[in-house]
Amino acid sequence: MDKFGKAVNYADGALSFIDCGNAMERDPLEAKSPYTMYSETVELIRYAMRLKNFASHSATVAEKKLAVLCNRCLSLLYLRMFHLKKDHAVKYSRSLMEYFKNSAKTSHQAPSPWRTNGKVNGTPSPLSLSPSPASSVGGGAGGGSGGAPGSSGSVAIPQRIHHMAASHVNITNNILRSYEHWETADRLASDSQEFFQELDSAMEPLSQQSSMTELVRYIRQGLHWLRSEAHLL
Amino acid sequence: MDKFGKAVNYADGALSFIDCGNAMERDPLEAKSPYTMYSETVELIRYAMRLKNFASHSATVAEKKLAVLCNRCLSLLYLRMFHLKKDHAVKYSRSLMEYFKNSAKTSHQAPSPWRTNGKVNGTPSPLSLSPSPASSVGGGAGGGSGGAPGSSGSVAIPQRIHHMAASHVNITNNILRSYEHWETADRLASDSQEFFQELDSAMEPLSQQSSMTELVRYIRQGLHWLRSEAHLL
Repeated sequence: MDKFGKAVNYADGALSFIDCGNAMERDPLEAKSPYTMYSETVELIRYAMRLKNFASHSATVAEKKLAVLCNRCLSLLYLRMFHLKKDHAVKYSRSLMEYFKNSAKTSHQAPSPWRTNGKVNGTPSPLSLSPSPASSVGGGAGGGSGGAPGSSGSVAIPQRIHHMAASHVNITNNILRSYEHWETADRLASDSQEFFQELDSAMEPLSQQSSMTELVRYIRQGLHWLRSEAHLL
Repeated sequence: MDKFGKAVNYADGALSFIDCGNAMERDPLEAKSPYTMYSETVELIRYAMRLKNFASHSATVAEKKLAVLCNRCLSLLYLRMFHLKKDHAVKYSRSLMEYFKNSAKTSHQAPSPWRTNGKVNGTPSPLSLSPSPASSVGGGAGGGSGGAPGSSGSVAIPQRIHHMAASHVNITNNILRSYEHWETADRLASDSQEFFQELDSAMEPLSQQSSMTELVRYIRQGLHWLRSEAHLL
């Protein structure tokens, strides 16, 4: 069997894993977490996609279709993983925002006129609009243009914050990856519009609101058609 | 004018700001960033919502409808802000993941059989499934159950990482807030199903894929109906 056939088989196997993860979400007594199940499924699909670069310019049309299906799978898996841990991320995010706000000793930013927490003092004027701290911090760091003092040194942070930041990065990485794979799939699908239009009519089109059940049904049908076209049935 | 009327006016004003931000997105010569414009709009809506707790149990039906509209607005504004900075977040996320991976000296986790980066050694067996590092880290910290050594001390991290983590938290906070406000709106809307069904038929129903233009048109219509019902026209 060639690498394409192998990858199709692995992708099909991954669907069974997603089915399991989906069932595990409804069974709180399950020892293994659905998050772990989905995370391992991601690794299996990545493994299949490393067999050959199915998304490269030299890939065949069938290989690109497979890459689209795999990228949609990865996108919705990452999205589901994000949702499973979202509440943790919200909790960590609050603590980290609080920590970074306090640790930012630089006070050259004018407060927004509407940040009055609780007591309201008069009417805000649209003329007094000023950059809010959130947007300034969000865009300032990392680019090296901010000229923050001592940016080459090091900072001591509580171990608790360090752990929380590591977890936060891991959880939010899922949503970033999800968008990335969704966009990759969109880009690659433009080469096989007819195939995916037919698949969309045969099944429900996939969206970022699709359930794991809908994902599995859609991808399974797509793989079936791919096998059929490649005479792998 | 009562607080409800005032809040409706502020919300309406916020729509004009969103229109401006939307136009700014298409004009690269604009001095002010659309991100800042949206961020200030968020503050204005928050200000309006602080005039009175429109989402509380004692709020009137009309007040809850206003809270739904405001929460939808906030959700899609946060989502748009996230998208405007997503590329930064992806870059920071990669660097931070790398940093935290290297800083995690604890090596008690078995590597997943499929994490072979590049060279592929044999076929993965579903039987050898093991928890992947991502899921363990994602769920472990913050809860205090992990028993990480020295979690009460402090860690020295490069200033660059500290800045990057602060920016990352700020950008990803947008997506977390977006989901939070979307869910709040869904919850509150269940008390006024008929109103929102009619609004959905009159306009296109809002979704997390709605554009800023669609958002403004939808909310403007909703506010118009609210004013009309409250004889504020």
